[in-house]
Amino acid sequence: MEDGGRSTQWRFAAPNPTLAAAGERSIQKALLQVHACLDERGPRPVIPLSHGDPSSAPSFRTAPEAEEALVAAVRSGEYNGYPTPATGLPARRAVAEYLSRDLPYMISHDDIFLTCGGSQAIETVMSVFGQAGVNILLPMPGYPKHEAHAVFHRMEVRHYNLLPERGWEVDLEAVEALADGNTVAIVITNPNNPCGSVYTYEHLAKIADIASKLGILVIADEVYGHLVYGTTPFVPMGVFGETVPVITLGAISKRWAVPGWRLGWIATCDPKGILRKTKVVDSLRSFVSIISGPATFIQVSQQCDVSHFITFI
Amino acid sequence: MEDGGRSTQWRFAAPNPTLAAAGERSIQKALLQVHACLDERGPRPVIPLSHGDPSSAPSFRTAPEAEEALVAAVRSGEYNGYPTPATGLPARRAVAEYLSRDLPYMISHDDIFLTCGGSQAIETVMSVFGQAGVNILLPMPGYPKHEAHAVFHRMEVRHYNLLPERGWEVDLEAVEALADGNTVAIVITNPNNPCGSVYTYEHLAKIADIASKLGILVIADEVYGHLVYGTTPFVPMGVFGETVPVITLGAISKRWAVPGWRLGWIATCDPKGILRKTKVVDSLRSFVSIISGPATFIQVSQQCDVSHFITFI
Repeated sequence: MEDGGRSTQWRFAAPNPTLAAAGERSIQKALLQVHACLDERGPRPVIPLSHGDPSSAPSFRTAPEAEEALVAAVRSGEYNGYPTPATGLPARRAVAEYLSRDLPYMISHDDIFLTCGGSQAIETVMSVFGQAGVNILLPMPGYPKHEAHAVFHRMEVRHYNLLPERGWEVDLEAVEALADGNTVAIVITNPNNPCGSVYTYEHLAKIADIASKLGILVIADEVYGHLVYGTTPFVPMGVFGETVPVITLGAISKRWAVPGWRLGWIATCDPKGILRKTKVVDSLRSFVSIISGPATFIQVSQQCDVSHFITFI
Repeated sequence: MEDGGRSTQWRFAAPNPTLAAAGERSIQKALLQVHACLDERGPRPVIPLSHGDPSSAPSFRTAPEAEEALVAAVRSGEYNGYPTPATGLPARRAVAEYLSRDLPYMISHDDIFLTCGGSQAIETVMSVFGQAGVNILLPMPGYPKHEAHAVFHRMEVRHYNLLPERGWEVDLEAVEALADGNTVAIVITNPNNPCGSVYTYEHLAKIADIASKLGILVIADEVYGHLVYGTTPFVPMGVFGETVPVITLGAISKRWAVPGWRLGWIATCDPKGILRKTKVVDSLRSFVSIISGPATFIQVSQQCDVSHFITFI
């Protein structure tokens, strides 16, 4: 075809098929479709149940100290530059100390990778393990972004069921049946999204045992960590790091009611150093070195002894 | 192998090879290697030439209005939640208006995708076009992140030379010779990184003509847009959007001396709607819907009539 003497045979016409498939798993996309069918001016109120965003409730405002620490960091003018390893170090230390409180061993800043919210933590782990031929075990029901990034990074997704009759525990037998030699990891979400349930110590121990037996690692999405309204206390999966290597995903988003601040983390809970030996840590570093991280002043505002988030608790 | 009765035959041992290759193109990785060889306490001062970060110079502080707009957004407590399409809309409108000033046609907020700095804009476009079997033309010398993300997304990178004897212009003949039926795009960086040169209107017109003839699009990295110290005025590639579809990458990072604030954009400069017809726009939307975007208060602080960045100029 010609158009004013020029070719219109564009060579970039083929869209990326994995990206289209990933986008289908997007909450935002589903939301836009739902909203297109709504009459928001109609007599019936619209209750948003789609986003785990505590900040939308006026009663959940973050601590004034957190806000002031952020404002001070902005006003100083010293944190307008790119994040550097030095910028993030105190925040990584603070997260490591915070997480270590609940673990039977200490993790260090070297085990922490800061991310732009929990979403980028998911993106990062899926990027590290994603290859054609590899599969990953995800919960059903589950959080769509796990699946979106797994699919985008060409992993085959195998769903295991959560069992409603057992408080949405993992169907452990299904996990054993689903895994094969190409399975790299099982993802658990605890406290659970979307079911709200919290796994007991005993159940987590069983997950660790099965993962260890299968030779796969556990990716524990704990962005709702410590947000527990029932009687079961929150136990981080990293407690079982001696049994199986654990990669924990977390963020300040939920507990501190600031999802829009976009600060999350990946923690390698791996006292035996298996993730180092298998070069998974190198891959995490490679990915983090080529992507955009969290804003610099967000990182530094988490570092002051008194006012950073981690000491609020 | 057995370890206390458990398998130590971990199945996730194979690192992602494309990620390792991408990490090799990382500036941060190279910097860490250089710093490991430096004695920073030695008598010779260390001048950092590795990062285009104007904020590190005390004379380049951003406008007080910008800082205040950001502080007000944080203090209001209204922008702690997740970014939504509504949150970003005024910022997208402001960027569209800003870019339209220099174009012979208007672009709208629908043509703008906000990203977490210029890096995520690069990540996004490479994610959209990245497939095995596809190749992309990148400048040599060039900005390593273009290559890192192209490699990570499995594109074959073909380098065209910049010609020092012609003010680091694109070697147009080389571009024609390098492209084939699997080439999707040519990336140009203008003003140039790392050479600092600025392309004339005439040279950009020639690039547009060749890209159109080849049926490939132009990805124009213009994060240094309008930062011009010589006599050649900055002309955005989008001026030639009638000739060839252009995807422009930009950010507030350089011109407003706030790279750590992490606000960038992708603009589709495509008055003929070719990127829509070829579903490239759908792919951009899909990717943006699954990744972490810029912090919410950064987006909204760009929207007020008087104090947002775009009106400073």
